[in-house]
Amino acid sequence: MTVSHYASRLHAAVLSKGTPALVGLDPRLDWLPPDVLAHACELHDDPAAQAAAAFEEFCVRLIDVVAPLVPAVKPQAAFFEELGPDGCLALSRVIRYARQAGLIVICDAKRGDIGTTAEAYARAYLAGADPLAAPWQADALTVNPYLGRDTLEPFVKVAVERGAGIYVLVKTSNPGSASFQDQVAGGTTIYRHVAGVVEELAAETAEAGFGCVGAVVGATYPQELVELRAAMPHVPLLVPGYGSQGGAASDVGAAFLPTGLGALINNSRGINFAYRSAPYNEQFGPGKWEAATEAATRRMIADLAEFTSAGVLQNPGR
Amino acid sequence: MTVSHYASRLHAAVLSKGTPALVGLDPRLDWLPPDVLAHACELHDDPAAQAAAAFEEFCVRLIDVVAPLVPAVKPQAAFFEELGPDGCLALSRVIRYARQAGLIVICDAKRGDIGTTAEAYARAYLAGADPLAAPWQADALTVNPYLGRDTLEPFVKVAVERGAGIYVLVKTSNPGSASFQDQVAGGTTIYRHVAGVVEELAAETAEAGFGCVGAVVGATYPQELVELRAAMPHVPLLVPGYGSQGGAASDVGAAFLPTGLGALINNSRGINFAYRSAPYNEQFGPGKWEAATEAATRRMIADLAEFTSAGVLQNPGR
Repeated sequence: MTVSHYASRLHAAVLSKGTPALVGLDPRLDWLPPDVLAHACELHDDPAAQAAAAFEEFCVRLIDVVAPLVPAVKPQAAFFEELGPDGCLALSRVIRYARQAGLIVICDAKRGDIGTTAEAYARAYLAGADPLAAPWQADALTVNPYLGRDTLEPFVKVAVERGAGIYVLVKTSNPGSASFQDQVAGGTTIYRHVAGVVEELAAETAEAGFGCVGAVVGATYPQELVELRAAMPHVPLLVPGYGSQGGAASDVGAAFLPTGLGALINNSRGINFAYRSAPYNEQFGPGKWEAATEAATRRMIADLAEFTSAGVLQNPGR
Repeated sequence: MTVSHYASRLHAAVLSKGTPALVGLDPRLDWLPPDVLAHACELHDDPAAQAAAAFEEFCVRLIDVVAPLVPAVKPQAAFFEELGPDGCLALSRVIRYARQAGLIVICDAKRGDIGTTAEAYARAYLAGADPLAAPWQADALTVNPYLGRDTLEPFVKVAVERGAGIYVLVKTSNPGSASFQDQVAGGTTIYRHVAGVVEELAAETAEAGFGCVGAVVGATYPQELVELRAAMPHVPLLVPGYGSQGGAASDVGAAFLPTGLGALINNSRGINFAYRSAPYNEQFGPGKWEAATEAATRRMIADLAEFTSAGVLQNPGR
């Protein structure tokens, strides 16, 4: 039996929605809308259970807003884990809900370990084409490469078996990502060494041009994005740093092929908490946070369509 | 109020037990003793709940065996996460049980992310001196440095506040750890660049000679262990790779200062599943797995005492 390849499923979703916009699910207790908090307090007395219920309701309602508009969501595991086991249960429910809403789910957990331990992480998170294949029903997982190429291979093996994907950290969006990633060894940067391994693994697993091994490259480093798109022709990119972190649509244009495929552009805070910031805070109060979320999502989609080759996704004849 | 420093609490535990032996808690379903599996099947019908109950009982009974003998345990998060939310709950219970047994608990989850996301992981896992300060009540957490120095700082901040510790991956024990860690940039390896940052952060947070920032250095690379012990004088080491991965006591001797302090030597499989391997499988059947565990632990302790300066911990007058 042939398992449906991750990149094929991803690109079908991108083409169907006509946009490469990826919405991060980053619930933060201090910023949740009052109605979400109120419901959670009615349901539970225990603070961790309250917070977990609030995270789940917030993400479910976010998913309801964005599922008709975008191909994929990216829950951030850290915020759920901060709540303890209740948060982990909420994360699993949010992932399941997003899958049922037809979204591609990339679990942003940045895992990495050696040998059979890496394989345990892979089996935990990479459900791939069949949501029931793993307890956390994600299509894809972010993975940290520091431990070495041999520690990526168990993830690739499980991803191939299940039609799942991984996104390896190559050049991250934070101000200090140069510390180790930009060190120059043998005439080229460490992030390029990592990119070389990622491209090899992607080429080996490619179907219709793309492998199941992707790369995380920050929108905050537009020059490196140009360099890395060229260095990794078989690699689907996940580009964080657009919006709140300072990356603009013009900066991320280089992530795409002329077809408009090849990258997802992530926005978390700018969409999750649109209702708290200009211009949406004036137009929509906290009671209309979902309308603010929808407006911010539509604006991002329009922005990407106008300033990048992703525009062809909306106007295939262009 | 002064919070008790991680290194001080760690070294008090090491001195009290007279050994730097660290026992990994790496439950694997296929290798669990029959009585543990039978109990779990009596309790639950659901396979994930069965497995989680079996992991919890196995780890609790392991802790009962080793708590009188060693200062610390290191649960491996991946194996628990593989069971989904039930596994995460079991992990939290196992950590709590180990703390109540007086053990230092190092959660081996190899987390790493940027900014406030890194801080969320820190607040999730680093309980430090007060077990109730975090939902996962660990004393310390393993952390991946690839994202950069600025992404270690949120972990250090929370560790200082709470009397917790972190162990940053520097040179890992796997065969392929050279891929990126051994690349030479500016005349020195990437793992030495990481070690430089780790030493700075440790020196800044030092009390009685040791910082709350430690390093993971594999026993499988004895030369690098010598080099890294010298390069990081304020850094407590966590040394995996002893036992099943091939490292011997003579290899890990370099991890210690003449006082016998400065490092924990980890053994996971060789102790967890001693009953399955020679010489213990002949002496003890599966029904006496805890006796095999105890014998393997005592043998490791004796081995470290004989072939390393850790011997002075057992004979302080020597």
